[in-house]
Amino acid sequence: MSKVDELYAHCENVLPGHGPKRMMKDVFEELAEGLDGSEALDRYGEGDYLSAFEKEVAEMFGKPSAVFLPSGTMAQQIALRIWCERSNNLTIAMHPTAHPEFAEQFSYQFLHGLKRLQFDTPEILGNRMLTLKDFQSLGKKPGAVLLELPYRPLGGQLPEWDELIAIHDWALENNIPFHLDGARIWQCKHFYNKEYRQIGGLFDSVYVSFYKDLGGLCGAMLLGAEDFIQEAKLWQVRYGGRLFTQGPYVASGRLGMQRVLPQIDSWVERTRQVAAILSEFDQLTVNPNPPHVNIFQLYVQGDPERMTERHMKIAEETGTFLIHKLNPTAVPGLGMTEIHCWENALQFDLNSLRPFLEKWLA
Amino acid sequence: MSKVDELYAHCENVLPGHGPKRMMKDVFEELAEGLDGSEALDRYGEGDYLSAFEKEVAEMFGKPSAVFLPSGTMAQQIALRIWCERSNNLTIAMHPTAHPEFAEQFSYQFLHGLKRLQFDTPEILGNRMLTLKDFQSLGKKPGAVLLELPYRPLGGQLPEWDELIAIHDWALENNIPFHLDGARIWQCKHFYNKEYRQIGGLFDSVYVSFYKDLGGLCGAMLLGAEDFIQEAKLWQVRYGGRLFTQGPYVASGRLGMQRVLPQIDSWVERTRQVAAILSEFDQLTVNPNPPHVNIFQLYVQGDPERMTERHMKIAEETGTFLIHKLNPTAVPGLGMTEIHCWENALQFDLNSLRPFLEKWLA
Repeated sequence: MSKVDELYAHCENVLPGHGPKRMMKDVFEELAEGLDGSEALDRYGEGDYLSAFEKEVAEMFGKPSAVFLPSGTMAQQIALRIWCERSNNLTIAMHPTAHPEFAEQFSYQFLHGLKRLQFDTPEILGNRMLTLKDFQSLGKKPGAVLLELPYRPLGGQLPEWDELIAIHDWALENNIPFHLDGARIWQCKHFYNKEYRQIGGLFDSVYVSFYKDLGGLCGAMLLGAEDFIQEAKLWQVRYGGRLFTQGPYVASGRLGMQRVLPQIDSWVERTRQVAAILSEFDQLTVNPNPPHVNIFQLYVQGDPERMTERHMKIAEETGTFLIHKLNPTAVPGLGMTEIHCWENALQFDLNSLRPFLEKWLA
Repeated sequence: MSKVDELYAHCENVLPGHGPKRMMKDVFEELAEGLDGSEALDRYGEGDYLSAFEKEVAEMFGKPSAVFLPSGTMAQQIALRIWCERSNNLTIAMHPTAHPEFAEQFSYQFLHGLKRLQFDTPEILGNRMLTLKDFQSLGKKPGAVLLELPYRPLGGQLPEWDELIAIHDWALENNIPFHLDGARIWQCKHFYNKEYRQIGGLFDSVYVSFYKDLGGLCGAMLLGAEDFIQEAKLWQVRYGGRLFTQGPYVASGRLGMQRVLPQIDSWVERTRQVAAILSEFDQLTVNPNPPHVNIFQLYVQGDPERMTERHMKIAEETGTFLIHKLNPTAVPGLGMTEIHCWENALQFDLNSLRPFLEKWLA
C-alpha cells in the first residue's frame, strides 16, 4: 500500500471514496453476502441475472435494449463505429476532452479509421462546454455526435436543459446519430430535475458505467434500439468483450446500483455544502461554482507538490483527509484536484473543514 | 437451470467439468477463501498481486514479460496486429479453424484490416493439421503465423515435435513472427514430454488462457519480449481492456492454476483410458486415437438428437453422465461431441463406462 493509501485508511474523517479501501478478500465476501445463492454466472453474455439487469437499466433510460460490456471505452467505440457506418460518414464530433480523444490511445482512429472534426481552427475551447453554435459551425455534417454529461474533465459541468434540447434538435434535424457518454449520468438528475428516461430519451444510444459513482468493480452498459444492440453484440465479440463470464462485474454493478443510486442526489447537495465552505478562502477556486453535480475542480494556490505534502501532514495530525493529490496546472504556482463526493462525503464532518483549511492555507 | 444442467447436477458419476456447477455466491466465497486478505485489487493493470502472477507465468514460458487481458480474442488480435505492423505486411497464416477465423466475427479484418492467406485453392484441409509443406506452399510470405497447440477444433491434435521444429525453423529463416495460440497449452506437456518453457521458447509471442482447463472465471495472458508487451498495453487501452480492475479474473486464474496445473498430466492419462474403452465399440469413433491431450472428438452413429435424448435417459437411470450434447456432422446419421477430461474425470468410475455404453448403443 502506498503512503497516501495508508494515511487514507487511518484517517477517520475522509471526504473522497466509497467506504474504506477494501482488499480483494473483503470484496468477494461482500459480493457473496449480497447474493441469495440462486444467481448463476452468465456465460458468454447469456444468463437470467445478467439479462434482468440489462432490462432494468434499459427501462430506466427508456431504451428497448442493453448489453453489459467490460468497459466504457469498448462501449463507446462500438457505438461510434455503428453510427458512422450507418451514416456512411466516418467523421465524429465530440469535445476535445471527450474520453475517446484523450484517454483511449486514439483507438477510434487506430481500430476504426474514424476522424474527429475540429471545433474551429485552432480549437480553443478552454474550460467551456460545446454549444449549439459550435455544432452549427462545424462546416461538415458528422457521422455521429458524442456528448458527455456531465463533462468530467470540465469539473462536471452540465449544459442548461434548453441548450441540451437545442443541440438534440440540431442533431435530429440533420439526421445525425446522437450518443450520450453517460459515465457519470447518475449525477445529473438533481441538476436537471428530470428522470433518467427523459435525459436518455434525447439520445439514440447511451453508455452508462457501474464503477466510479456506483462503486462497482468494473463494467458498463450500452443502451439503444433492439437492432442497434444486436449489432453491438457482434462488435462485442470482435473486441474480445463477450467474456466467458462477466459475473463479478455484473453482480457488483447491480448491488452497487441498489445501494448507491438512492444516495446520489444527497451527494450533490453535500457537494455544494463542501464547495461553499471552500469558496470562502481566497487561495481556493471552485469550478464550476456552485457545482452542477457531485464533482468539481478545486484550484489551490501554492506549489502543488508542497501543498500536497502539507495536506498529508495535517491529515496525519487531524484525522481529516480531503484529497489524494494536487496536480500541476498550466499556471505556475497553481495546483488542481478533482473533488468527488461519494459515500464517504455523507459521513464527512463539515465542521472540521474550515479549521483544516485554515491550517492548510496558512 | 436447463434440464441438462439439472441432470448434470444430480448425477453422481460425471465425466466432464470441474466439480459441480457452482452459483455465483459459491464462486465468490471460494475466491475469498483462497486469499489471505493481503491481496489488493489491481487498478488499471497495476498491482502487486497481478504483476507477481504475470511474472510467474512469463517465467514459466521463458518470456521476459506478460500482460493479463480479459480474453484470448483480444490477446491474439493484439499480437497479430503488432507483428503485422512490424513486418510491414498485413497478411497472416493460420489454420482455417483457428479461433480468429471462425469464432471472432472476422475481427482481424473488421478492426485491423488483416487478411488471411489460403492454404491451397480450394482450401481443403479436412481434419488435418498444417505441415511445413503447407507453409512452404503459401506463395507469399505472411506478416505473422498463428499456430494453435493443441488444435482444439481438430480434437486436440498436436504435431510431432520434429514437425513443430521444422515449422518454427521455416518461420525463423524467413523472419516471420511466430505466435502460439496456447489456449490449451497446459495439456501439451505430457505429449511432448517437454517443459512449458521449451514449447514457449519456439514462439515470439504466446497466449495462454485461465478458464477452460484451469477452471478460472475468465482471462488470458499475452507473453513476449518487453517491448512487445509494452506495445500490447497500448492496444489493451485501445480495446477497452485495461479495466478498472481485473481482480476477480486474476485471483480465479491464479488459484485455478495452483489447484489444477499439477493434475493435468493425469487428466491426459485418464483421457486415454476413457478413449480406449470407447474404441471398443463399433458405433463409436475416437479422433485422434489415442488422444494427444485431455480432449478428443467422439463420433457416434445414430441420429444426434435421438442419441442425445437416449444418453440423458440412461444418465437419469444410472447416475452416470458423459456428454452434454451430440452435434450433427456433415455425415447424415452421425453425431459428434468433444470429450474434455478435467477434474471430474479423475473421480469418474471407469467401470461404469462399458455398461453405460452397452445400454446407450444397444
